[in-house]
Amino acid sequence: MTQHSRRQFATLAGGTAVAALTPSAAHAQQQAGPLRIVFQVSDGEPSKWSLALNNVRNVQSEFPDDPPEIEVVAYGPGIGMLRGDSPIASRVAEALKTGVKVVACENTMKGLKLVYTDMLPDIGYVTAGVVEIARKQQQGFSYIKP
Amino acid sequence: MTQHSRRQFATLAGGTAVAALTPSAAHAQQQAGPLRIVFQVSDGEPSKWSLALNNVRNVQSEFPDDPPEIEVVAYGPGIGMLRGDSPIASRVAEALKTGVKVVACENTMKGLKLVYTDMLPDIGYVTAGVVEIARKQQQGFSYIKP
Amino acid sequence: MTQHSRRQFATLAGGTAVAALTPSAAHAQQQAGPLRIVFQVSDGEPSKWSLALNNVRNVQSEFPDDPPEIEVVAYGPGIGMLRGDSPIASRVAEALKTGVKVVACENTMKGLKLVYTDMLPDIGYVTAGVVEIARKQQQGFSYIKP
Repeated sequence: MTQHSRRQFATLAGGTAVAALTPSAAHAQQQAGPLRIVFQVSDGEPSKWSLALNNVRNVQSEFPDDPPEIEVVAYGPGIGMLRGDSPIASRVAEALKTGVKVVACENTMKGLKLVYTDMLPDIGYVTAGVVEIARKQQQGFSYIKP
Repeated sequence: MTQHSRRQFATLAGGTAVAALTPSAAHAQQQAGPLRIVFQVSDGEPSKWSLALNNVRNVQSEFPDDPPEIEVVAYGPGIGMLRGDSPIASRVAEALKTGVKVVACENTMKGLKLVYTDMLPDIGYVTAGVVEIARKQQQGFSYIKP
Repeated sequence: MTQHSRRQFATLAGGTAVAALTPSAAHAQQQAGPLRIVFQVSDGEPSKWSLALNNVRNVQSEFPDDPPEIEVVAYGPGIGMLRGDSPIASRVAEALKTGVKVVACENTMKGLKLVYTDMLPDIGYVTAGVVEIARKQQQGFSYIKP
């Protein structure tokens, strides 16, 4: 808990009832079940790809004992994140090692004439990235576009 | 079905139990009900407008027999997608013909002094694009910002 | 309790029937309950920060009698929106006065060596912006990335 949220709890310390009616953000984050998040990577800027993996790492570090279910879906101009020549190849490998699911869109690959051997090792594939992202939301995943 | 997922099914052809234990992404995508997706178009770059319609087409092509319910909402700098002089006017017309709902934000139009005759034919209108997008999510639509 | 939630309780104190009958401008949009929206501000361009607050204002103006619950979460390159030297400081202050919750990501602040006194007054803080945004969706908030 940060110093700030500790201060928030101090303010609310007058009564549990009040706290229950107006949970602070930090408080609410502890109440619900494990998070499930689908990250959309569809921009062409490598800075966005790094930001996505920073986001993933920040989420993971909040829940050391209750790891959230995380999937990163790259499609469109974002597919470059998962090509063999990706500038953040080592970071993708690290994410995969921590159990993050990382998948590439086959529709995008076809459009760019990319084949599986052009891509990073150990990633997964989906026919249509957008469909995958939509389905995950339908299944209760939260959506983040970094 | 892509060549890759076909190969996956061939590999899995030995038994249903195996298939059930190792569902491919494409397989998982077929299990739930019809998709409903709201696409947000709020960026000013025409490349984003094209990407949005590519996304729509990819979703449609995955479900030839069970067409998903798709709505595209343009607001803010994205309103240009639906102006009469839109560089992708013909593609918007094609999307409308396939049953996609395409709507423009009237708040944005007012801010830019655009009237209905300035816009593409056959599109719809909503008072506030953001409210429309939020309501659709509340009703169970998945959200995609291309 | 924030100023916003206090006003919400005051509004609801009159009776659920009144709230349910309150007409909104957009007819089709009024069927579900009050909107709850989490806005993600993670881009570095000040134009995106302004767009986010324009979006907030448009949502509010649609529901003069049934104020939606709105939270703006700034993280990553978007943190600049909430720094003391933010070019839209006065607009953030206005949003706060209308009851919007505006929070900064402490993970991002740490990365940039920002302390609370570097930030705008009256904002809130969360440990991880992405976790906050994901949790809000899990709680039923709609997601908008302007």
